[in-house]
Amino acid sequence: MKIIHSIKELKVIPNVNIGLVPTMGALHEGHLDLVREARTLCDTVIVSIFVNPTQFGPGEDYNKYPRTLEKDAELVASVGADYVFAPTVDEMYSNSKTSVHISELTSLYEGAFRPTHFDGVATIVLKLLNCVQPQRAFFGRKDLQQCAVVEQMVTDLNVPVDLVFVETRRETTGLALSSRNAYLSPEERHTAPELYRVLNKTRLAILGLSEVKRATINPVLTNSIEELASVGFAVDYLDIVSFPAMQPLDTENGQAFLVVAAKLGKTRLIDNIQVFAR
Amino acid sequence: MKIIHSIKELKVIPNVNIGLVPTMGALHEGHLDLVREARTLCDTVIVSIFVNPTQFGPGEDYNKYPRTLEKDAELVASVGADYVFAPTVDEMYSNSKTSVHISELTSLYEGAFRPTHFDGVATIVLKLLNCVQPQRAFFGRKDLQQCAVVEQMVTDLNVPVDLVFVETRRETTGLALSSRNAYLSPEERHTAPELYRVLNKTRLAILGLSEVKRATINPVLTNSIEELASVGFAVDYLDIVSFPAMQPLDTENGQAFLVVAAKLGKTRLIDNIQVFAR
Repeated sequence: MKIIHSIKELKVIPNVNIGLVPTMGALHEGHLDLVREARTLCDTVIVSIFVNPTQFGPGEDYNKYPRTLEKDAELVASVGADYVFAPTVDEMYSNSKTSVHISELTSLYEGAFRPTHFDGVATIVLKLLNCVQPQRAFFGRKDLQQCAVVEQMVTDLNVPVDLVFVETRRETTGLALSSRNAYLSPEERHTAPELYRVLNKTRLAILGLSEVKRATINPVLTNSIEELASVGFAVDYLDIVSFPAMQPLDTENGQAFLVVAAKLGKTRLIDNIQVFAR
Repeated sequence: MKIIHSIKELKVIPNVNIGLVPTMGALHEGHLDLVREARTLCDTVIVSIFVNPTQFGPGEDYNKYPRTLEKDAELVASVGADYVFAPTVDEMYSNSKTSVHISELTSLYEGAFRPTHFDGVATIVLKLLNCVQPQRAFFGRKDLQQCAVVEQMVTDLNVPVDLVFVETRRETTGLALSSRNAYLSPEERHTAPELYRVLNKTRLAILGLSEVKRATINPVLTNSIEELASVGFAVDYLDIVSFPAMQPLDTENGQAFLVVAAKLGKTRLIDNIQVFAR
């Protein structure tokens, strides 16, 4: 496996069935699942590792975001990646004036709490896609709204790539793997799995409703938010949404997910679970 | 030559050294120069003809913009184009939520008078580049700031394409060819060439300055604006700018162009001329 730092070096990789796994590093088994999936579907697997400043808001954790390139490179090599692309901020953004904006679904849920986040995500993903020109790109379903934003952008801008969304990897406790789990204290780590447990309970409660509509869903959601609060979470949102539009669901129609974001101490966790498939 | 209307049809064209000439139709010899240039440099020449709604502001001429597809197709066939890509608005923008934004150079000059124009241009150009995936794309230097915006976008978003900017085609009177010249009354058409004559005169005056700085440039520009006003132009701007930054020039450094926009009756004309090459 080869680590490269410049776009120039990327351009000499023969473009035959490339799979791109865009990451911010601090890799865990969830990321490695993306690499494994890419390995089975593609001839050349490129993992990008870039802590993208434009997707962090003021006061967010850009500076303290874990940077562990050497260890990350070993991990992705162990599951068969061919290249790590780890550019500098200057390589990606020198004198850049251009950004991608996606309306509507970027201002809801995560977007409401992180107003510039998804435009930053969309811009760096588009840049990486243009640099690498992969046939397929792989994203984790844990960041569900990110999947929706990238799908919207790729469709709207006619980007020639197939997107593959990979199932969330969880600890045996149910806690979704996340680079930000590293911020949790031992006590918070003990509480954190409640998020997934309550998601599942909420899912079952909604599936048990005789009719799925806002008037019946909302009391279920309110209950669950109170339950999360009672064990120490400060809930930013908990809702059932359509995918990929990320609109609050009011009838059982199409794909639907429960999405949640909640703070445990200073650490903000997100998770989601599919409720309806069709 | 083949006329196609869907992105699907585009995708089956073998991707070997394609040249894309993006246009809004109402073609004239200036556009045909772009096609001729593409013909000499590329194996497959695709001319897109699409009156892009997102680059027109409220009150601009989107509805009355001339649409002459049949004649346009004959013209580009006569200079060797292989395909005309003429999509519907729905084909390009169905449910689209994504746009490209370029800061700074889109708010100056043309951007100051047409605030959403260049974001609309950048977005459709990016979409067309992604649909066609050409090796080269051709733009007319008459729309100098458009060239600058597209160059900035392609650089910032790492779009894999070479841009070719083609010299402005003029009538023997000096008037730059433009689809909007069709709006001029016979009398206005008689006055219109003054724009280029004054540009040339201004260029010579600036080249004759003992020192090129704002204090010496500004009186020259003021004179020229008055001269244009005296023959009937309402001048939106006349300035000497760097390229591709489109910043007001204050020293002789790098490429510099005189840029002008002026109204003759209800018709807004733009033009430019290079002053310094280095």
